[in-house]
Amino acid sequence: MSELTISVRVYLEDTDAQGVVYNASYFRFMERARTDWLRARGIDHTALADEYGIALVLIATEAKFRAPARLGDLLDVSATVTDVRGARVVFAQEIRQSPADDGQLICEGTAAVACKHTASGRPVRWPDELLRELKS
Amino acid sequence: MSELTISVRVYLEDTDAQGVVYNASYFRFMERARTDWLRARGIDHTALADEYGIALVLIATEAKFRAPARLGDLLDVSATVTDVRGARVVFAQEIRQSPADDGQLICEGTAAVACKHTASGRPVRWPDELLRELKS
Amino acid sequence: MSELTISVRVYLEDTDAQGVVYNASYFRFMERARTDWLRARGIDHTALADEYGIALVLIATEAKFRAPARLGDLLDVSATVTDVRGARVVFAQEIRQSPADDGQLICEGTAAVACKHTASGRPVRWPDELLRELKS
Amino acid sequence: MSELTISVRVYLEDTDAQGVVYNASYFRFMERARTDWLRARGIDHTALADEYGIALVLIATEAKFRAPARLGDLLDVSATVTDVRGARVVFAQEIRQSPADDGQLICEGTAAVACKHTASGRPVRWPDELLRELKS
Repeated sequence: MSELTISVRVYLEDTDAQGVVYNASYFRFMERARTDWLRARGIDHTALADEYGIALVLIATEAKFRAPARLGDLLDVSATVTDVRGARVVFAQEIRQSPADDGQLICEGTAAVACKHTASGRPVRWPDELLRELKS
Repeated sequence: MSELTISVRVYLEDTDAQGVVYNASYFRFMERARTDWLRARGIDHTALADEYGIALVLIATEAKFRAPARLGDLLDVSATVTDVRGARVVFAQEIRQSPADDGQLICEGTAAVACKHTASGRPVRWPDELLRELKS
Repeated sequence: MSELTISVRVYLEDTDAQGVVYNASYFRFMERARTDWLRARGIDHTALADEYGIALVLIATEAKFRAPARLGDLLDVSATVTDVRGARVVFAQEIRQSPADDGQLICEGTAAVACKHTASGRPVRWPDELLRELKS
Repeated sequence: MSELTISVRVYLEDTDAQGVVYNASYFRFMERARTDWLRARGIDHTALADEYGIALVLIATEAKFRAPARLGDLLDVSATVTDVRGARVVFAQEIRQSPADDGQLICEGTAAVACKHTASGRPVRWPDELLRELKS
């Protein structure tokens, strides 16, 4: 399935006193890539809430940190859908130094996102229109 | 008027690659002290929204950074109401090293918070009950 | 092995526009619990850097989000060491609503932390003194 | 003096449970614009530390919040140097909705940044080369 890659600059806000990117910042970066992947298919949080009464909720995520990124680095953050079924979509994600630098792998992760009714919090099957977009 | 002081430990998440607390973290710390000041008077964001249909919104804030705080520091963060009128309450705030350390002044700030209708976003006068608590 | 639990209040800074705690905030909470677990044994980032020239670096982490937490919630965040060997220590972590509320499980996670030379970034075996503390 | 404007997308990480951008996020956005203003003149934190042994430190900042920004908004964040003297540079900053939307003013701020010796923490006059860039 299709992949989207965004470019993320590392600012002071993303780093910590160990001189490298703070671990939770990578989860923020990966969520930006997933959001842009969805937006590229016309799916955004606000529209989902207003039109369908549903929310996309992260239900599980993991990351392996392979090398540190540092202040000022320009990173490529990718999101690739690897599975869509029922109420769930699974993304594989990578963070790398920009290819213009050495392209070194920084972080590998996965994220499982569920489609839930905003009101009840219960999982619901993807609306057919969204399912088509997710599988495209 | 009355003051509330909370204790805040500095974790990695609060620091940056310059080895000190990142500037926006101080605004998070000051907001925690304001929230606890309000909660101590029975005022919390969720209840305000549910019971009165109002939200407390930060409309202006400033900070002067006097000395850096560092990873592991234990800070005292204070909030003191200095003015309540119309739709607005103003807090003076200080962040200091714990008195058990040297009590050094880290940051001085102010924050002006307005009472707004959630639906319209318009400022509204404080409900009388809340006004009594704010002035107590 | 031994467990440490800290209490974490949910502030505005921790939440997002879906009205619940933002996913990366849980990773910040879990890191606070690990830091306090280590500090309870006299191990802190600054001392490790100064005395041993080593840094504790998160190399892998995962979380399963079981139920949402919300603004104002008081959470119990635990860290339990489940394995120590070579250059690595593994924590199991849980986030629950306060037992004074319903104690509902919010998030389960793990975190693998490695001991690395600050200068080279290479993994190193734990110094004996630290190993004793980690296994105590 | 010259101005630089960057484009910032609002992600979930930037918002809070009131459904709008969290106040400290605006300070992160303004710092991104200042960093890019400096980088456009060849000035970056890492190079300053390595070549000159100096750090740029925020010593005072303020913001007035004029209207809320929301999830998915595309914002223009500007940084304009308004004063350079001694060890200090002052920025005026604005955050607006993208001109492609209505260009509404979201936030106005200022930031005073000082040049300090990394080792001593003392303010130092800008090196002549940097001063030329700051005034260009």
